Amino acid sequence: ARIVTLPGDGVGPEVTAAAVAVLEAVAGHYGHDFAFAEHPIGGCAIDATGEPLPAATLEACQRADAVLLGAVGGPKWSDPNAPVRPEQGLLALRAGLGVYANLRPLAVHPALAALSPLKTEKLRGVDVLFVRELTGGAYFGAKTRGADAATDECKYTVAEIERVARRAFELARGRRRHVTSVDKANVLETSRLWRSTIARVAADYPDVGLEHQLVDSMAMLLLTQPSRYDVVVTENLFGDILTDEAAALAGSLGLLPSASLGEGSHGLYEPIHGSAPDIAGQGVANPVGAILSAALLLRHSLGLEAEAQAVEAAVAQVLEHGPRSRDLGGNAGTAAVLDAVRIALE
Amino acid sequence: ARIVTLPGDGVGPEVTAAAVAVLEAVAGHYGHDFAFAEHPIGGCAIDATGEPLPAATLEACQRADAVLLGAVGGPKWSDPNAPVRPEQGLLALRAGLGVYANLRPLAVHPALAALSPLKTEKLRGVDVLFVRELTGGAYFGAKTRGADAATDECKYTVAEIERVARRAFELARGRRRHVTSVDKANVLETSRLWRSTIARVAADYPDVGLEHQLVDSMAMLLLTQPSRYDVVVTENLFGDILTDEAAALAGSLGLLPSASLGEGSHGLYEPIHGSAPDIAGQGVANPVGAILSAALLLRHSLGLEAEAQAVEAAVAQVLEHGPRSRDLGGNAGTAAVLDAVRIALE
Ligand SMILES: CC(C)[C@H](C(=O)O)[C@@H](O)C(=O)O
Ligand SMILES: CC(C)[C@H](C(=O)O)[C@@H](O)C(=O)O
Repeated sequence: ARIVTLPGDGVGPEVTAAAVAVLEAVAGHYGHDFAFAEHPIGGCAIDATGEPLPAATLEACQRADAVLLGAVGGPKWSDPNAPVRPEQGLLALRAGLGVYANLRPLAVHPALAALSPLKTEKLRGVDVLFVRELTGGAYFGAKTRGADAATDECKYTVAEIERVARRAFELARGRRRHVTSVDKANVLETSRLWRSTIARVAADYPDVGLEHQLVDSMAMLLLTQPSRYDVVVTENLFGDILTDEAAALAGSLGLLPSASLGEGSHGLYEPIHGSAPDIAGQGVANPVGAILSAALLLRHSLGLEAEAQAVEAAVAQVLEHGPRSRDLGGNAGTAAVLDAVRIALE
Repeated sequence: ARIVTLPGDGVGPEVTAAAVAVLEAVAGHYGHDFAFAEHPIGGCAIDATGEPLPAATLEACQRADAVLLGAVGGPKWSDPNAPVRPEQGLLALRAGLGVYANLRPLAVHPALAALSPLKTEKLRGVDVLFVRELTGGAYFGAKTRGADAATDECKYTVAEIERVARRAFELARGRRRHVTSVDKANVLETSRLWRSTIARVAADYPDVGLEHQLVDSMAMLLLTQPSRYDVVVTENLFGDILTDEAAALAGSLGLLPSASLGEGSHGLYEPIHGSAPDIAGQGVANPVGAILSAALLLRHSLGLEAEAQAVEAAVAQVLEHGPRSRDLGGNAGTAAVLDAVRIALE
């Protein structure tokens, strides 16, 4: 399998290297052949080429079986009014790969409950899979900017909503068979289209339960009744906000992976944490989010379910017994955590 | 002072009646003369007149010194694709009164910490004032709906951002002198305008600190470091989501008030909870959110600070010693809580 790595900025290179090391260990144990090719994206790509997503990077990603990304951005490129910005590279990559369904699983490891801001009893049984629409909405709509005003257009087509809805319902069949669709149908026209399209798709999945929630209520319910939710599907911007809110429950941002999928097995995998410039280059970043993203890559792009589960089990063992990185209250560096995961894999 | 009451739907009439009773008690103790006039809005207005905001209701509100609202909406009028909906009344009222700044204070009463999903140590010192822009953004932008697609436009002008920013900075001067502005400037053009306009206004308030946060990060920070924030200012839709998220921290939605202010002392006051159709008409709704909204009315529209503080102190006493309504784990009805607040006021 051909895997493109896009280490990006900040702690991106450190955590991506750890995830690659885990994939290499998996390849060794199970007799697979993974070929890695590294390309620039984000701030480092702007510095090297003037562009946040060089054409060669996008082409390599399009030809690959899967793409493993670190993180993009940092203080050097943080002016939101600059004409060229690292995030543009990420958005162009998502669009260029057509990865319209962003999967963000949230589970809270019992051994880490003490680190969560939520009360321990609230965390019991929390196991949510967010499915965020990733290539539509206000992220990609028409924008205008004048001296006195600015606009952003949020647009959704029925086809865009349908395909991500189907993905959510399919995923629910492999889980607890319940989908919660989140919108703001009491105010937004796109949300009214969203709601009726989801309801129509749901008719094809009579074995899966469907519930609609308004985004403001959902922001509250994620805190008051988090264990109630199975698959949560929503549009791009609501998904951005709700998945970060949910991520806070896990105890550290450094833990959580994501998979962005399009048609076929093509996929983009990245930890949900950012480039963390404050700790970049120090060898202390938590590699778990990146390593669990590699597990999702094994599952969703390479069809290697047993291997994915082995990586997840190894990570769970390390989270339980240590060593732990700083964000988890320990003092292990990236390398020590990686080594522990590799040993647990054996 | 002339106060228009808009009880609305569900538990709205019950909690509004309690808030009016508290205002009448205040009028008696302090020798004020408050005249109340009731008008329909929302679902009950649709049923009575075909319109969610009858012209007579809006005119009465525009002539009043302040407006006290209960809640709108309910299962009877919940089809988001219906041509006439209760929420339209609320949105038209906000626009018609020009109340562009929605104040939502969040404080967590220590006696209620056990009810919050957050760990008790996280709640210590939490005292946030959200200032949500209320008459712009996607709520009021152009919308389209075709068979295959829908759009919502989010638009902000510099003038709209400036006036709410000034309100936030002024309010910060009466508090801990810190403003956090929330946007999505790495993606949205309106957010880039928002950020640069806020920064320009901030120059007129050198005594107030300013920090920018992205909305996704803020959704997380509200959980991991809630006591860090003083005044949080943001646009309409982000404010809708973040204030509901924050409301979950208080332990019950039934506790929290809001004030929506325009130019001058004109104001619209409402608890942040909805119409709660499941418990409507049973006399068990928590009136505290409505009563605290009446306190904000005394403060912001009538300039009666001592009276506002007296109501807030009375409520705090009842929250500490009871009686408590069901949402707070007690079994007191609306009337018992109201009576306790009135006694504490004496
Ligand atoms: C970096 C940013 C553009 C991005 C987004 O908003 O999608 C990030 O927050 C994410 O969630 O992956
Ligand atoms: C009822 C609804 C239109 C309203 C809003 O979204 O503003 C409500 O959620 C609120 O926050 O007051």
